Amino acid sequence: MLRIAVLGVGRIGRMHAENIAAHPRATLAGVFDVHTPAAVEISEKLGVPRFESAEAVFASPDVDAVLIATSTATHADLIEAGVAAGKPILCEKPIDLSLARVNACATKIAGATVPIMLGFVRRFDTGHAAVRQAIEEGQIGELHQVIVTSRDPGMASVAYVEVSGGIFRDMTIHDFDMARFILGEEVTEVTATGSRLVDPALMERCNDYDTVTVVLKTASGKQAIINNSRRAAYGYDQRVEAFGSGGMAISENRTLNQLRLYTADFTGQATPLLNFFIERYQDAFAAEIGAFVDAIEQGIAPPVDFEDGRQALILAEAALLSVTEGRTVKISEIG
Amino acid sequence: MLRIAVLGVGRIGRMHAENIAAHPRATLAGVFDVHTPAAVEISEKLGVPRFESAEAVFASPDVDAVLIATSTATHADLIEAGVAAGKPILCEKPIDLSLARVNACATKIAGATVPIMLGFVRRFDTGHAAVRQAIEEGQIGELHQVIVTSRDPGMASVAYVEVSGGIFRDMTIHDFDMARFILGEEVTEVTATGSRLVDPALMERCNDYDTVTVVLKTASGKQAIINNSRRAAYGYDQRVEAFGSGGMAISENRTLNQLRLYTADFTGQATPLLNFFIERYQDAFAAEIGAFVDAIEQGIAPPVDFEDGRQALILAEAALLSVTEGRTVKISEIG
Amino acid sequence: MLRIAVLGVGRIGRMHAENIAAHPRATLAGVFDVHTPAAVEISEKLGVPRFESAEAVFASPDVDAVLIATSTATHADLIEAGVAAGKPILCEKPIDLSLARVNACATKIAGATVPIMLGFVRRFDTGHAAVRQAIEEGQIGELHQVIVTSRDPGMASVAYVEVSGGIFRDMTIHDFDMARFILGEEVTEVTATGSRLVDPALMERCNDYDTVTVVLKTASGKQAIINNSRRAAYGYDQRVEAFGSGGMAISENRTLNQLRLYTADFTGQATPLLNFFIERYQDAFAAEIGAFVDAIEQGIAPPVDFEDGRQALILAEAALLSVTEGRTVKISEIG
Amino acid sequence: MLRIAVLGVGRIGRMHAENIAAHPRATLAGVFDVHTPAAVEISEKLGVPRFESAEAVFASPDVDAVLIATSTATHADLIEAGVAAGKPILCEKPIDLSLARVNACATKIAGATVPIMLGFVRRFDTGHAAVRQAIEEGQIGELHQVIVTSRDPGMASVAYVEVSGGIFRDMTIHDFDMARFILGEEVTEVTATGSRLVDPALMERCNDYDTVTVVLKTASGKQAIINNSRRAAYGYDQRVEAFGSGGMAISENRTLNQLRLYTADFTGQATPLLNFFIERYQDAFAAEIGAFVDAIEQGIAPPVDFEDGRQALILAEAALLSVTEGRTVKISEIG
Repeated sequence: MLRIAVLGVGRIGRMHAENIAAHPRATLAGVFDVHTPAAVEISEKLGVPRFESAEAVFASPDVDAVLIATSTATHADLIEAGVAAGKPILCEKPIDLSLARVNACATKIAGATVPIMLGFVRRFDTGHAAVRQAIEEGQIGELHQVIVTSRDPGMASVAYVEVSGGIFRDMTIHDFDMARFILGEEVTEVTATGSRLVDPALMERCNDYDTVTVVLKTASGKQAIINNSRRAAYGYDQRVEAFGSGGMAISENRTLNQLRLYTADFTGQATPLLNFFIERYQDAFAAEIGAFVDAIEQGIAPPVDFEDGRQALILAEAALLSVTEGRTVKISEIG
Repeated sequence: MLRIAVLGVGRIGRMHAENIAAHPRATLAGVFDVHTPAAVEISEKLGVPRFESAEAVFASPDVDAVLIATSTATHADLIEAGVAAGKPILCEKPIDLSLARVNACATKIAGATVPIMLGFVRRFDTGHAAVRQAIEEGQIGELHQVIVTSRDPGMASVAYVEVSGGIFRDMTIHDFDMARFILGEEVTEVTATGSRLVDPALMERCNDYDTVTVVLKTASGKQAIINNSRRAAYGYDQRVEAFGSGGMAISENRTLNQLRLYTADFTGQATPLLNFFIERYQDAFAAEIGAFVDAIEQGIAPPVDFEDGRQALILAEAALLSVTEGRTVKISEIG
Repeated sequence: MLRIAVLGVGRIGRMHAENIAAHPRATLAGVFDVHTPAAVEISEKLGVPRFESAEAVFASPDVDAVLIATSTATHADLIEAGVAAGKPILCEKPIDLSLARVNACATKIAGATVPIMLGFVRRFDTGHAAVRQAIEEGQIGELHQVIVTSRDPGMASVAYVEVSGGIFRDMTIHDFDMARFILGEEVTEVTATGSRLVDPALMERCNDYDTVTVVLKTASGKQAIINNSRRAAYGYDQRVEAFGSGGMAISENRTLNQLRLYTADFTGQATPLLNFFIERYQDAFAAEIGAFVDAIEQGIAPPVDFEDGRQALILAEAALLSVTEGRTVKISEIG
Repeated sequence: MLRIAVLGVGRIGRMHAENIAAHPRATLAGVFDVHTPAAVEISEKLGVPRFESAEAVFASPDVDAVLIATSTATHADLIEAGVAAGKPILCEKPIDLSLARVNACATKIAGATVPIMLGFVRRFDTGHAAVRQAIEEGQIGELHQVIVTSRDPGMASVAYVEVSGGIFRDMTIHDFDMARFILGEEVTEVTATGSRLVDPALMERCNDYDTVTVVLKTASGKQAIINNSRRAAYGYDQRVEAFGSGGMAISENRTLNQLRLYTADFTGQATPLLNFFIERYQDAFAAEIGAFVDAIEQGIAPPVDFEDGRQALILAEAALLSVTEGRTVKISEIG
């Protein structure tokens, strides 16, 4: 049984802790949170030790691996600490809001052999993964276009938005990784368009956008289109479409069940989209833990790693530059 | 934490044991199986005690409740033993293949206050339950017709079929309960049609049917149509349709994900139906354990009980009589 | 150009007249209706002759074929007149409400070589026909079960219901023909269940049913289930499902377009079902005229004929007897 | 009856001629084609006069209006001739491949009161129009994003591609109009991305693209994303999605019928997408003629006019400039 500790037990960390506890080949080695009451509560609820500090977690001989779900600003430090302690890491995205900090971290951990996995959970969604698999199996021929539709069910709090680093680094980052996952080759050009339509005043104040379209292009000419909105009235919209020379594969939205209601007023699906990411990607979060355990147990590379996190951030930087300058940005200009 | 023991750890009992272990307010108190190696394996895997007999389970002060997943012939005896020991019971369907035995059991346990819940798991499926809920909320008006489509992905083994008690008592029994659940009032008439199309030779030998249609009618004239096949080439087909004066609600089939594939050959859903009942009703089985725990903790009646099990068997008897005599059978003629 | 006259230009006859006029290899030879103003109106609108009587139509050298869309009671007489005049006939269903009258007509026209086609238009629906084709191509293996769901969007007028001959002869008659079309072999047993749920008072008074289920069985054991309601709040519900040893084919409902609407309240199809039969089966009605023209031009048997009309009526009689006596009725008992 | 003549009876002109002949309030006044045998054939088939020249058509007192379906290079001249003759015009898109020529034509016909309608047929598709209507009715709130997916089932012939004016002027032109139709306000910025993936050699030679993404933005920040491919293996892909503050409306692809096939291999839609534009937009082409007739009869402006044709061409020019220079192009830079 692999003993995994969790740093940070906010909403996401808590869910990870429960998934670790439920995994057949892993146990929850304990938790730490700078907000002690949160750590006490989860420690008591799940009957696991509470650590006094992140350092104590990394120093503990009873901890085999560490999941980092703390605030973004601490990720890079904790990754470095994990590498120093020789403990495998599963870190929530993004690595950092600053590409310079991420690059510095990359330099520092260069050559490390301890597995570092990034929490791009959507790769583990069975529907999105099936799109990738359909491509690999040749079911849609040579890939030409990818469309990633990703819309949140509601604007996050003002406080959150203000420190989020902007939509590209905070929200689109998931879609940059999804596009890279589906494209299967590196992006060379980025063109972004941003609008302020959901909450223009807030966006104006934060110099941010709530409605964006990003077009990615690879060296071979493959295109990926990402469209984002901070607020979809009908729920959490998560779709991935891959179009190729031989056909098309779409991972459509999921609902809790397949209830269809037919009345004089409408004909259709009665159950709303799964809301929010913890429900929508519930299976994917569990599969992510499984992939982390597999990588450590089998000594294989994790399926999504530090460099994937860095590349996604590079695309975010390129998108920001593109929208600012109103032009296509080459990836070679970034970093 | 409610301590629940499991009697019988074949395929279904094992799944129940794991669901109990995973439930946040229950623990697996131990297992028993007449086939000792199976009990040893699951006891070791889950780290729980193995009991030497059913009697030992009922006598144990460390067991709060018992789940019965043994062979059908032992169900009634074990229910009686559970009642005698004052331990709440969750028993797999059917209670017994003989209505006389079920009636005798009913007489024996009459007046017992210990909760006895029957394992009609489909009531806990979120889609099927949503159909019932739509009716209760008045979304489809007054109920008129119900269609339950229920087809297994493949014929069971010859050995199984021979002792199954026939399709009505073994397979349709689930659909009789689903029809009663959706109808919301008692059935008064049953008309059944049986054919031998999947494996005519086996059916001839067992005097059984593999393809049946049963029409149920209530006193107020509501109709329920059940159609069954022992083998659907495309997988486990589980649909429930309710039609009323104000509309229609359908619980459609579920698939693992929402992948859609479009090629020159076809356009549509690429992922097959969930297969078999353990996958299809995975969430429902977990919810069933939850409902059992809730009933005991809160001292409320279980949502599906012994009498539901008895009524489903009465419908099976009526269907058998109907198909034999080629006529509509009144429930008052049975039992 | 085949010159076809239309007898009876009520709602259905008028639509047929327009379809004939629009057919590339047919012309509308003229119309007749006992209600002269209706005939005048359509004759002027389409610029075609108005005949003074049915006799004049049959006698006219300028009429190659006749479509009968008059009231039911006149169908048999007009068919006989058509045969006597040697003019091909396309007659609306049913032939007559009395099986005795139909049988007498059959005797009278026995041996006639002039094509007589019955207007079971649903056979020409591209979706329902594709189910039949899938069976013929072996795509679903050996056929086992058929489910025909057929629900009208609203109860017809009291005056209509009173003279309709009852639901089996008036409404289910279409489904009996559809079941025969999909089954591909003759029915030997009929079991029917009837309820009074939509308008119990009217049904009581007419000794009729508004909600029925009919189960048909063939000699080889194939089953067809028909379910009818006189009123579906969500529109005209027309589905055909065929289940076989190798798979299933379903002809689902059609809508005007494929608009999907997603709001906070619901997720789904925004466009109601096509309403009513003239819209739903618009293409099929045109194809029916085409099949009639083809049969005459090519000297081949029409795809649906007098005997099909007679067999459907026999099934209606059997259903009525079954519901009255509460038993399965053998076709050999009828007529 | 409005007497409409058709200039040009290739595949599209012939279809228009048949639709005019079938319209209840229009007649086909005759046809002309520089390729005389084509004109002879259609004139004989439909029993209408064949004109010797376009001039003869415009001079004829028996022609009330003219539909132009000749080759693109002749459109502007014929529009000018029509205006000079005072005859209403329905002209196939595009007006011309040269914006300068279109502008000159605009100047020449400025102030003309004769109706000039452009053949952007997709506006008349009931599904796409329903998206626009949902917006107008406020069903999806304030519009934020539009996604137009438009992929041809197969690359046109080399000869056609070479003179097509490039994908933006030839194919995307329809989608530019659709985007304008759905957006409901003028586009101010265009950003385009082009790739050569379907037939790289041909595209290289023609300096054209076969796979493009175009992002349009309006002054208020609304975004429209167009994605095109010259070849979709699964057929003609035509979808329109509108996303707003209150919800989403999608016009999904259409199929001939709603057959669903379920086998061991797949579960889904058995009928391919409607192919090609003449089948897919069959109803829309007929509705387009109807809108033309309505505009003339009622003396109202046609729903899509010369300026719509000019604006779509401006967007094509802007897209071409954007893809060439790798930057966002402002509409004010064009023309």
